[in-house]
Amino acid sequence: MTDSLRELSEQLEHFARERDWQQFHSPKNLASALIVEAGELLEHFQWLTEAESHDLPPQKLAEVREEVADVLLYLVQFASATGIDPVEAARDKLVANARRYPVEKARGNSSKHDQL
Amino acid sequence: MTDSLRELSEQLEHFARERDWQQFHSPKNLASALIVEAGELLEHFQWLTEAESHDLPPQKLAEVREEVADVLLYLVQFASATGIDPVEAARDKLVANARRYPVEKARGNSSKHDQL
Amino acid sequence: MTDSLRELSEQLEHFARERDWQQFHSPKNLASALIVEAGELLEHFQWLTEAESHDLPPQKLAEVREEVADVLLYLVQFASATGIDPVEAARDKLVANARRYPVEKARGNSSKHDQL
Amino acid sequence: MTDSLRELSEQLEHFARERDWQQFHSPKNLASALIVEAGELLEHFQWLTEAESHDLPPQKLAEVREEVADVLLYLVQFASATGIDPVEAARDKLVANARRYPVEKARGNSSKHDQL
Repeated sequence: MTDSLRELSEQLEHFARERDWQQFHSPKNLASALIVEAGELLEHFQWLTEAESHDLPPQKLAEVREEVADVLLYLVQFASATGIDPVEAARDKLVANARRYPVEKARGNSSKHDQL
Repeated sequence: MTDSLRELSEQLEHFARERDWQQFHSPKNLASALIVEAGELLEHFQWLTEAESHDLPPQKLAEVREEVADVLLYLVQFASATGIDPVEAARDKLVANARRYPVEKARGNSSKHDQL
Repeated sequence: MTDSLRELSEQLEHFARERDWQQFHSPKNLASALIVEAGELLEHFQWLTEAESHDLPPQKLAEVREEVADVLLYLVQFASATGIDPVEAARDKLVANARRYPVEKARGNSSKHDQL
Repeated sequence: MTDSLRELSEQLEHFARERDWQQFHSPKNLASALIVEAGELLEHFQWLTEAESHDLPPQKLAEVREEVADVLLYLVQFASATGIDPVEAARDKLVANARRYPVEKARGNSSKHDQL
């Protein structure tokens, strides 16, 4: 794992070890915690229009920022529990996506690659 | 945003601009896409025991790695669309969590801070 | 559980027993399966505008209908595994919501009850 | 829609109309609200073992029951907004699943039908 995420990962491991929380942190449970936080993030947007979602009032933005933090913290812990480097995985996926979504076919089109 | 995530963020912006996809990438939609990918990640674990989730066969691990990538890619795009630095937000949250979950009270206890 | 849901519940129990699937169907796992299906449902809408979501083409509507089925099937199984009657629970919640969201305060307002 | 769910659906429509909430209740938004509630349901289980999830203390069970209610209430509203009959859809899906998961191949096996 690279740089700032590795640092987060080490701090999280220390945090969990100090509290004897590793027993709860199976990949299965961390994947659950991740989606629970993603739900708390989405909750802020469920009744907003897309336009409103571009322009959050400061208090709501601060709450959204905390949910982004939670999602990242569980993603980093999940990655570390499964030995996955998330940034490297993301780079590989970007390369694959460039192949699956050629510019000329995907332009202005939100369809999935198998329906382009 | 720091280092490797900033680089990903710039590549993603370029990727979306080339395909004229910014029109789809409101914070509301990106928060939806994020949880959809978190669901695809969790799908791999829904019927596994926690013990099995620690020990994925290589083919399944490769699929899980792709879902981790997708979650990170949407998280980075969401963060960039809302002007949030996810690593900084995560660091701040870790500090807050250290206060909310004091070692002596939280040890071996998975309860939420307001129920400790 | 009432009428048509009870019938579904009995069919699902038979279905799982025949296949020796009860071992997988802990409340924890069924709650995971439920959200995974809710994610597959949301996937159909993530890039649509709200207006488009009111007017799905027939093929997409048929796919959405399958996801609605999956959500209901796991909800019924979850409810049966925890001994909850979902329709009775929903009726009770409607009564509570009527108290929490008085018409005059909630009109045209999507805020949560604690922020009205 | 059949019986008790139809009754819920009518009450929910009345509830939303009185509060002028139909403007928020696009299928897209209702699908978001549904997964958000599914996340609140899963949150109760994320750190529990499967065995613990079978045996919830009364207070937790009461909270879980409220989340089941919320999931059903949004599912019913989503179904009504898209003109889908969820019980009929579930019955059709059960028939399809019986074909996709023949007893002799699926017994004791949690794999997806395309991997049996």
